[in-house]
Amino acid sequence: MNTELLKKLSAADKRSVARAITIVENGYTNSTELLKLIHKQTGNAFRIGITGPPGAGKSTITNHLTKLYRKQNKKIGIIAVDPTSPFTGGALLGDRVRMNEIGNDEGVFIRSMATRGSLGGLSKKAIDAADVLDAAGFDIVILETVGVGQSELDIAQAADTTMVVLVPESGDSVQAMKAGLMEIADFFVLNKSDRPGAEHAIASLQTILMMKEHDENSWMPKIIKTIASENKGINEINDEILRHNDFMKNNDLFLAKREKQIINRIKNIVEEKIRSELWNESGKNSLNLSLEKVVLGDLSPYHIAEEIIEKFIRQMK
Amino acid sequence: MNTELLKKLSAADKRSVARAITIVENGYTNSTELLKLIHKQTGNAFRIGITGPPGAGKSTITNHLTKLYRKQNKKIGIIAVDPTSPFTGGALLGDRVRMNEIGNDEGVFIRSMATRGSLGGLSKKAIDAADVLDAAGFDIVILETVGVGQSELDIAQAADTTMVVLVPESGDSVQAMKAGLMEIADFFVLNKSDRPGAEHAIASLQTILMMKEHDENSWMPKIIKTIASENKGINEINDEILRHNDFMKNNDLFLAKREKQIINRIKNIVEEKIRSELWNESGKNSLNLSLEKVVLGDLSPYHIAEEIIEKFIRQMK
Repeated sequence: MNTELLKKLSAADKRSVARAITIVENGYTNSTELLKLIHKQTGNAFRIGITGPPGAGKSTITNHLTKLYRKQNKKIGIIAVDPTSPFTGGALLGDRVRMNEIGNDEGVFIRSMATRGSLGGLSKKAIDAADVLDAAGFDIVILETVGVGQSELDIAQAADTTMVVLVPESGDSVQAMKAGLMEIADFFVLNKSDRPGAEHAIASLQTILMMKEHDENSWMPKIIKTIASENKGINEINDEILRHNDFMKNNDLFLAKREKQIINRIKNIVEEKIRSELWNESGKNSLNLSLEKVVLGDLSPYHIAEEIIEKFIRQMK
Repeated sequence: MNTELLKKLSAADKRSVARAITIVENGYTNSTELLKLIHKQTGNAFRIGITGPPGAGKSTITNHLTKLYRKQNKKIGIIAVDPTSPFTGGALLGDRVRMNEIGNDEGVFIRSMATRGSLGGLSKKAIDAADVLDAAGFDIVILETVGVGQSELDIAQAADTTMVVLVPESGDSVQAMKAGLMEIADFFVLNKSDRPGAEHAIASLQTILMMKEHDENSWMPKIIKTIASENKGINEINDEILRHNDFMKNNDLFLAKREKQIINRIKNIVEEKIRSELWNESGKNSLNLSLEKVVLGDLSPYHIAEEIIEKFIRQMK
């Protein structure tokens, strides 16, 4: 491991941060070593998750929040994850605007991550990147993700406070993703709230929220109205983040949440490591060799699965 | 293993089929044994995947397709999966209607599966249940799933032909799920196509479809317009299923698709088996014991992950 990289990293040197994130993003062999080494320096950054459907205005909100925190002289790291981009090619459209607005500020670091090939691993890498920013001394890390599936839930669950950004037209997505959204949202942001249907959207969201089990001591997600393009409602978002943070700390929930996140993270690391060992070249080959036996009906997929596990254990000894 | 159950199963006895599916759904200890035993009898049923957002009309389409196939004297098994139901509680609303319409037909078997607790494992169980129906001699197995995340993609990928059902209002979902939908849809159904916005929805869908890489030899998903509640367009769906099936067979793609499915399935079985061994009581305990070391900064999640893997390998020997 390059000790100079580590030294510069602790000094929040942007080029070293970029290099370190490239190491974890590409899963280079020294990635695990780097993440082990920086662990002692992590745990200080406050992590904000921002998720929601494409076009809801997540990057506009991120930009304005960043400007607000810069006025408080805080250093901001932003990881923008778009798992839908491999197909559309030109995703992360918000990035160019963003780079112009806040990208040249020395106290702001921005990194976009898109899926290359498979969905798996993207959330793990984003969380690893958040660790790098944390260790480099950024005060706030914003994890911005397109909310479409499990991988974004993983990322949002790695944040201290998560907001789900919707627009009046998101009704359909809310229906579709309701279980997951309810689970992760510490509060909702209804952006573009001057558009027709805003009140209706709020009413439906409130109906769904009321279905959630709760009592007077539990946190109830609020709905914050914004028009992010006009910088309206950003202070209210910040107030709600602080209110949530206070609630978590006053009710001894903050540490519990972080512990749950660590458990999830360890599980993900273990499972991904095992998956990569299982399905390496040799694993893939033996799977392909067994295929015909299943097609012919000689052996069931369950037989082959047992053989593969036995072989894996023998090899790992 | 109850050999009588197996005998009755091959005779498509509905009560035995129900019992066998309960065994695989609950993951009873004899579940793997059962699935191994029936494997030789599988591979004959044609598997149709139907997915799409809630309320798109999937169960109505399933009902009408089932009636069509019953006229051809085919036996139909239906597995309806709803991963969103744990939160809404009363999901699977289509089921009561369905039971009245086709549930009493001796040649039709219907089973609903909802998520109990976690999303993981539901798709595996649905595919296992499809195997049971296949082995029991059902000619057609319909896998109907709410399209919200990875688990439904898994199920749809286990079908020979998969249709994605949308309505004119689904624009938002299409945006959000586009990468996944494009990957799995052999064709699209625009249901409720008499509603405003239908032509616009078709145009957007076609734009997205054109972005998909293809040449004159590759299959291009069509868009079929239906009004399922009035039984309009159901024959067209069936025609498209047959056309897709012919295309797959004429281009030697049918077997390739089944082989890919078997590979995915074996991988899922292996990974789920390993996960269940990793995170059993003892595994969860040692994870919890290591937690404090991570919180205090003494060890990183990567250190703990390595310890867990080493312990796991030692135990599995």
